[in-house]
Amino acid sequence: MSEVLDLARDLIARPSVTPDDAGCQDLVATRLQRAGFACESLRFGQVDNLWATHGSGAPVLVLLGHTDVVPPGPREAWSSDPFVPVVRGGALHGRGAADMKGSVAAFVVAAEQFVAAHPGHAGTLAVLLTSDEEGDAIEGVRRVAAVFRERGQRIDWCITGEPSSTERLGDLLRVGRRGSLSGTLRVHGVQGHVAYPHKARNPIHQAAPALAELAAREWDDGYESFPPTSFQVSNIQAGTGASNVIPGELQVLFNLRYNPHWDAPALEAEIAALLDRHGLQYDLRWHRSGEPFYTPEGRLRSVAREVLGEFAGAPPQESTGGGTSDARFIAPLGAQCIEVGPVNASIHQVDEHVSVADLEALPDLYRRLVERLLL
Amino acid sequence: MSEVLDLARDLIARPSVTPDDAGCQDLVATRLQRAGFACESLRFGQVDNLWATHGSGAPVLVLLGHTDVVPPGPREAWSSDPFVPVVRGGALHGRGAADMKGSVAAFVVAAEQFVAAHPGHAGTLAVLLTSDEEGDAIEGVRRVAAVFRERGQRIDWCITGEPSSTERLGDLLRVGRRGSLSGTLRVHGVQGHVAYPHKARNPIHQAAPALAELAAREWDDGYESFPPTSFQVSNIQAGTGASNVIPGELQVLFNLRYNPHWDAPALEAEIAALLDRHGLQYDLRWHRSGEPFYTPEGRLRSVAREVLGEFAGAPPQESTGGGTSDARFIAPLGAQCIEVGPVNASIHQVDEHVSVADLEALPDLYRRLVERLLL
Repeated sequence: MSEVLDLARDLIARPSVTPDDAGCQDLVATRLQRAGFACESLRFGQVDNLWATHGSGAPVLVLLGHTDVVPPGPREAWSSDPFVPVVRGGALHGRGAADMKGSVAAFVVAAEQFVAAHPGHAGTLAVLLTSDEEGDAIEGVRRVAAVFRERGQRIDWCITGEPSSTERLGDLLRVGRRGSLSGTLRVHGVQGHVAYPHKARNPIHQAAPALAELAAREWDDGYESFPPTSFQVSNIQAGTGASNVIPGELQVLFNLRYNPHWDAPALEAEIAALLDRHGLQYDLRWHRSGEPFYTPEGRLRSVAREVLGEFAGAPPQESTGGGTSDARFIAPLGAQCIEVGPVNASIHQVDEHVSVADLEALPDLYRRLVERLLL
Repeated sequence: MSEVLDLARDLIARPSVTPDDAGCQDLVATRLQRAGFACESLRFGQVDNLWATHGSGAPVLVLLGHTDVVPPGPREAWSSDPFVPVVRGGALHGRGAADMKGSVAAFVVAAEQFVAAHPGHAGTLAVLLTSDEEGDAIEGVRRVAAVFRERGQRIDWCITGEPSSTERLGDLLRVGRRGSLSGTLRVHGVQGHVAYPHKARNPIHQAAPALAELAAREWDDGYESFPPTSFQVSNIQAGTGASNVIPGELQVLFNLRYNPHWDAPALEAEIAALLDRHGLQYDLRWHRSGEPFYTPEGRLRSVAREVLGEFAGAPPQESTGGGTSDARFIAPLGAQCIEVGPVNASIHQVDEHVSVADLEALPDLYRRLVERLLL
C-alpha cells in the first residue's frame, strides 16, 4: 500500500464531522514535526487549526486544507460505512475521500518528500489546516487570517487542495472565486382580514415590485473570466396558513454571487436604496460569506498551468466558477491563490470516493508545484 | 324569564360545534310543529338542515339561520363554560349567543306569535336552518338550495338572522355581500444551486412581476354601495430552508372579494390570462366560495328600513360589507335577501354574548317584518 493511501485511510477513519477534528490534525502534526516542521495549534472554540512551517522568510508558500467533513447522512444510504475507508473498484471510498482528506494526505507526503530532498530550500513551506471549512467557517481560516494580519505574517502563494478537477486530475485550475453575500429581509406590513384590505397593509403586495426589479436587474456583464454577478431569492415565506388573513410580515432570504466588480458594502447599499425607493418598511440582516478573489496571470498561475498540463496531458481550464473556499480569507492578505485537487464528482454525496490512481499521483503534483516555487 | 331567553339558553346548552347540530333543530322542529308548521328534515352527510313552512303559495318569506357554532377554543380562556348559558351584566353569555342561536330563538318565538295571531296569513312563512354555515358550507344551504332548484321551490324574500348590528340593535341593514374566490397557484421552476443560476429557473423570480401586476391592479371602482373588488395574497411559500438552493416551486394562496361587476368565471379567466402573459409555468386550483348578491331598492328593503328605524331610533345604515353568509346560496334562486340580527362585537371570540334587552326585542323585530310582508 502506498504512503498517501495509508494516510488518507487513517484520516477517513477519524469521523471528523464539522467542526470536530477527531484527531486528524494530531496525526498530521506528528508526521510533519518528525519531518522538521514547526507546528502550532490554534484552537478557537470547538475548532482546531494547525499551522506547520518549514524554513523561514520569503517567499511563503502555504498548502491550505481542511480536516472536517460534511455529515454522511443515513448510514443505510451508503454502500459501506462512510468512516471505514475501503478500496473498491479502483477508488478509495469514505466521507472526505475527495473533500479533502485525500489532498491533506498528499500535502503531508509531498511536504515530507520535499524537505527531505531539499532541507535548505528557499523561503517557507507551510501547511495550514482547519476543522471549520464545511461549517460556519468563523473560527477556522477566517480567524487564523486575523491572527496572521496581527502578526504581520506574509503569504505569497497559497495552494488550496479543494477538489477542483472535473473529469481527470489536473483538468481545471481554479484562479478565483466569486464573493457570496446573503440577506434576510423582513418586510413589515399590517395584518388584517382579506375582506377589509383597507385596514391592512399586505407585505407581499408591497414587496412584489421590489422583488421583480431585483430579479430583472443585470448587475454587470462579468469580469475577466468571472460570470456576471447573480441575485437569487432562495426562500420566501408569509402567511398564517389561513386563506382569509392578510399576513403582517414577509420574510425573504436571498444570496448574491458576485465578481470583483463589486464588494459587499457596495451591494448592500445598492439593495437598501432599491428597497427604500419602493417605500418598504423592512429590516435587513446581512451575512458576508466572503469577498471574491482573483489571481491574475503571474508566477503561481504559470507554474500551476505547466505542472497540471504534465498530469492531465493538456493545459488546464482556468476557472473562477464554483462556490466558496477558505482561499477567500487568505487572498485578502495579499497572497496569490489557486485551487488544485482531485475530481469533485462525488463530494457531499453518498459513496464519496477518490480514484486510487489520482490519489497516488497527487503527492507528486503538489511536490512539483512546491519545487518550482521554492527552489 | 322570557320565552326567547329560555329558548336561546336551551340552544346554547347543546354544544353544536360545526357541523354537529347536537339536537338544536329537533328542539326547534318540535316547537314549530306544535305551532302548525310542516317540518322537513334534510340531512346530508353529517349536516342537519330543517325546512319548516306555514301557509302555502306566494309570496314565500324565509327566515334563514344556522344552529352550528364555531369551536370555543380553550375552556380556560372563557370567564364561564361556553356551553353553560349564563346571564351576567345584562347579557346572555355562551358560544352562539350572538352568532346565531339568539336569532334562531327569536325566529321561533316570532313565527309562533305570528301564526297564532294570523293563521290565515298570505303566502308562506318558512324557517330554514342548517348546521353547516360555520364549516365547509357544502352540505348545508348550498345543498338545500340545489334541492329547491330541482323542486321549483320559489322564494321571494329571505331574512338572514346573522348578527349585522354594529353598536345597537337595528343600526345596520345588510343588503348584499361581496363574492369570494380563492386560488392556489403553484409556479413551476427548476431547482438548482444559487452558484449556478443558469442551470436553474427561479419560480420566485418568474412570479414576482405577475404578483406585482396583480397587487397593483384596480379591478373596478365599486358597484352601488359595494367597495371595489380586492385581490389579496394570503400566503406565499418557496424554498428548502437552505440559503444556497434555488427552489423548484413557489406556492401562492390568494383571495378575491368581488362586487357584482364580476363573477367567478370572469375573474378566473382574467387571472389565467395575466399569468400566461408573464410566461409562467403553473397549476392553478380555484375555490369558489360564493358569488356576490345584491338586493336593490324594493319592497323588502323599504319594509326593513322602516322596522329597523323603529327599533334603533334612526334609519339603518344599508351595507354590503363584511364576509360571506348563506344568503349567497338563496339569492341565486331569485330571492331578495337582507340580513338583520343582533350586535356582532363578540362573535367568534371568547365570552361571546348578546344583550338580554336586544334578545328580548328581537322576536318583535322579526314579527313586525313578517307582518308587513305577509299581511
